[in-house]
Amino acid sequence: MKKSEKHGEKFMLLAIREARKGIRKKEGGPFGACIIRGGKVVAYAHNEVLLDHCVVSHAEIKAITKASRKLKKWDLSGCEIYSTTEPCTMCFSAIHWARIEKVYFGTTIKDAKKIGFNEMMIPDEKMKKIGKSSVKIIEGVLREECLALFSEWKKARGKKY
Amino acid sequence: MKKSEKHGEKFMLLAIREARKGIRKKEGGPFGACIIRGGKVVAYAHNEVLLDHCVVSHAEIKAITKASRKLKKWDLSGCEIYSTTEPCTMCFSAIHWARIEKVYFGTTIKDAKKIGFNEMMIPDEKMKKIGKSSVKIIEGVLREECLALFSEWKKARGKKY
Repeated sequence: MKKSEKHGEKFMLLAIREARKGIRKKEGGPFGACIIRGGKVVAYAHNEVLLDHCVVSHAEIKAITKASRKLKKWDLSGCEIYSTTEPCTMCFSAIHWARIEKVYFGTTIKDAKKIGFNEMMIPDEKMKKIGKSSVKIIEGVLREECLALFSEWKKARGKKY
Repeated sequence: MKKSEKHGEKFMLLAIREARKGIRKKEGGPFGACIIRGGKVVAYAHNEVLLDHCVVSHAEIKAITKASRKLKKWDLSGCEIYSTTEPCTMCFSAIHWARIEKVYFGTTIKDAKKIGFNEMMIPDEKMKKIGKSSVKIIEGVLREECLALFSEWKKARGKKY
C-alpha cells in the first residue's frame, strides 16, 4: 500500500467514527464526512437530519458549513473531503460550489438506495460529466468498513427510528 | 390571467423582495426564495453566501431550513417553493429530498451563469429526468422582474462586492 493511501484511510476512519456517533445518538442516517487541508483535519460531521428535522443536514453539508465557519471563507480550494458514502447530488453540488478539489468515498449512492434512502440516482461521476465539474472523485476507500455502518444502523434503527 | 397565476405571482413578489434585501445588505447573490403551504407563507430567505462565508447558504436552502425548523419536520410534502432563479443542482436536490411538490422560478441557471456564477449547467428538468424525481417544475414566473434583480446586483456590486 502506498503511503498516500494509508494517509487517506486515516481520514476515512475519522469519517466512519463520526457516522458511528450519529448512529449511536440516533441523529440521522449512517453517514459521516471529514474535510482536510494540507494533511490536517479542518472539520468533520455526521448526518443530523433527524436531530435538525431538516434534509439539508447531511454529513458533507455539515462539514462544509463547519469548515467555512472555521476558515472564514466560502472558497475551500485546497481542501479534500472524505465521505463514508458517495455524496448525493445535493452534497456533490455543494462540494463543487465550495471548490473542494477531491472527494473520496466508501460505499455508493446505489448502496444507500438499497437500504431505503430516497436518492436521486445520479452518481457523482455523471454529475461531474454533465455539469462539467473539475472535482476529482476517488471511490471505494475502506468500502467494507463503510458498508458495515449500514448493518449497524439497521440494527439500531430496529429499536427506535 | 387566471386567479391561480396571480396567486403565484404574489409569492414570487415576496421572493423578489427577499432577493432585493440581500442585494441591499450585500449578503450574497441576487436570489430569493419563498416556501408556501396551503396558500400561506411558511418561510422566505435570500442568498447569504457572503454573510455566512458558506456556499450552502443559498436562498432555497435557507428557506428549507427555516421551514423545517418551523414545522419541526424534514418532510415538507404539501409545500411549494418560489425561487427568483432556477434552483441550482444543490438546491433542486434539497427540494427533492424535502419532498416539496412544486418549484416555480423566474430566471434560469443559464441566466445566472451569464452574470458570472460558477453553476454546474444542469437544468432542473434534466436533474428531474435523470434522477427520476417527481418534483413539478414551472418556469418563467415574473421572469422580467427577476432579471431586473441581476442589474440591480451588478450596480450594487460595483460599489463593494
